[in-house]
Amino acid sequence: MTERKGYAGNGLVHVKNPHLDSMDEDVLYHLNLGTKTHNLTVMFGDIKFVCVGGSPNRMKAFAQLMHKELGLEGDGKDLKDICAGTDRYSMYKVGPVLSISQHGMGIPCISIMLHELIKLLHHAKCHDVTIIRISTSGGLGIDPGTVVITDIAVDSSLKARFEQVILDNIVVRSPELDKDLVEELLNCSKEIHDFPTLIRHTMRTYDFYEGQGQLGGALCSFSNEKKLAYLKRAYNAGVRNIEMESTVFAAICGLCGLKAAVVCVVCVLNRFEGDQMKAPHEVLVEYQRRPQHLISLFIKKHLGLYNQMELLDNAFFLNN
Amino acid sequence: MTERKGYAGNGLVHVKNPHLDSMDEDVLYHLNLGTKTHNLTVMFGDIKFVCVGGSPNRMKAFAQLMHKELGLEGDGKDLKDICAGTDRYSMYKVGPVLSISQHGMGIPCISIMLHELIKLLHHAKCHDVTIIRISTSGGLGIDPGTVVITDIAVDSSLKARFEQVILDNIVVRSPELDKDLVEELLNCSKEIHDFPTLIRHTMRTYDFYEGQGQLGGALCSFSNEKKLAYLKRAYNAGVRNIEMESTVFAAICGLCGLKAAVVCVVCVLNRFEGDQMKAPHEVLVEYQRRPQHLISLFIKKHLGLYNQMELLDNAFFLNN
Repeated sequence: MTERKGYAGNGLVHVKNPHLDSMDEDVLYHLNLGTKTHNLTVMFGDIKFVCVGGSPNRMKAFAQLMHKELGLEGDGKDLKDICAGTDRYSMYKVGPVLSISQHGMGIPCISIMLHELIKLLHHAKCHDVTIIRISTSGGLGIDPGTVVITDIAVDSSLKARFEQVILDNIVVRSPELDKDLVEELLNCSKEIHDFPTLIRHTMRTYDFYEGQGQLGGALCSFSNEKKLAYLKRAYNAGVRNIEMESTVFAAICGLCGLKAAVVCVVCVLNRFEGDQMKAPHEVLVEYQRRPQHLISLFIKKHLGLYNQMELLDNAFFLNN
Repeated sequence: MTERKGYAGNGLVHVKNPHLDSMDEDVLYHLNLGTKTHNLTVMFGDIKFVCVGGSPNRMKAFAQLMHKELGLEGDGKDLKDICAGTDRYSMYKVGPVLSISQHGMGIPCISIMLHELIKLLHHAKCHDVTIIRISTSGGLGIDPGTVVITDIAVDSSLKARFEQVILDNIVVRSPELDKDLVEELLNCSKEIHDFPTLIRHTMRTYDFYEGQGQLGGALCSFSNEKKLAYLKRAYNAGVRNIEMESTVFAAICGLCGLKAAVVCVVCVLNRFEGDQMKAPHEVLVEYQRRPQHLISLFIKKHLGLYNQMELLDNAFFLNN
């Protein structure tokens, strides 16, 4: 089966499903939204940037940051969770920015969310949408706190592919991210001097313990030497961080005409040095703000709301 | 690689990880617990029953139900979330019952939780622990509201196996559930006359849309006929419901010496009749209480807290 990329020149978000046209109603069940119950065009038609992340609290914090950075009225503390009717996903809209939690960890959670989010953007007739996954990740040979912009997402065999089971067949999809967007994000990072940012490969695993070579799970059948040899192979292939969603995110967004990027901070640790996460809470919280800060700067530049004079403010923001 | 089941005759919960003994501290990061920060034996040593489910609200509701059914003091409304320091998992303890949310949907979420939960039970020196996953599921040829107790969990190729990626190898694990427990649960169900309960096979898919043959995702490359043919093959193989976690749950629990069962209510719909979920909210809420009610009865019987005179109460509970 061959699948073509979704860009069609008009900037619209594409669904690739011939069945949708014949449905009289589309219930976005896990988002608690629908085409008959909500006017999606009015609610979401102006969306230009979507940020996706794992933790509901973090995505609310990002929405509040954007509220402040875009200079909107009020303190943003009472931002409404658009998906409040479900205890799965959380979603906040701040001007042209949508901040949405992927609910849990790994491919199934983000996959369900992406299917329904993309249909939402399609129904709302959004165009020229940029989507960025911001997250924490484990690091390979780089220091905690480093931000990695993914150029290529690889699977646990270090291949740039995403294997999607469709019915009982396996279809191989290309996890392509937007090259221009990657460069643009790196350029933004050069204006922030408080943390290192790199463009590198990201490895996506199916799980956190055995799949990532963690020695600390309830089950572990390999030696420390085998673990290190595996991580070394990944390092030599260009991988600098490990998470659990990048390949499916890149594959689905690419097929549907969204400009997509993955920006993760190395939060856990340098996996060559250990597996257990013992950094103080406040250090982790500061690390988690770094991708948010980078994306905030990127969005403000796109909206013409940024100038050099704000650099001092940014430094102040990071240090407080 | 061969892996043996975990039962060792002493009823203890087993970890199968030689590295754990040499760790001076075990941080159960995603649960916000640890061996140095918490006295796990005091907190959890009396646990005999663990119930796992997808939704934090539902698992809180189950804990409150158990609080009432075990006749504990107070109304249970202020039950404390033991994992409150994280916005990932939620956990409530009610006497010997632990109710824990698996955070999100699919294998990665439940796998992380199981690794840390099993280490928790191990550190707490728990023994003779029964673990039951209660959930919603899609139905195959059976009516919504039916409760399915899984005898065999199969993957999307209809094989009773769980393929675990360890480093970059695939290890095939047996998703075995406890046969005696399955029968015992069915016997319990015979005392509840308000909903049908069956023992059948359950199919575990990697995702909700393309993997389950849903026609309503952002991407769909197959016809309705192909979808129905696939579901028919599953039906003919004995599958009556579809969810996203059963094989990994059965495999990990079986390896670690936990008596495990999966009890799902068919909540979504009979997939032969459509894909979109349009049942009224209150109907879905009542369905979701059915597995909880069955497990509550099972636990009360084990604790000697149940007699025939309560049947009328049960019927009242279900109808109100």
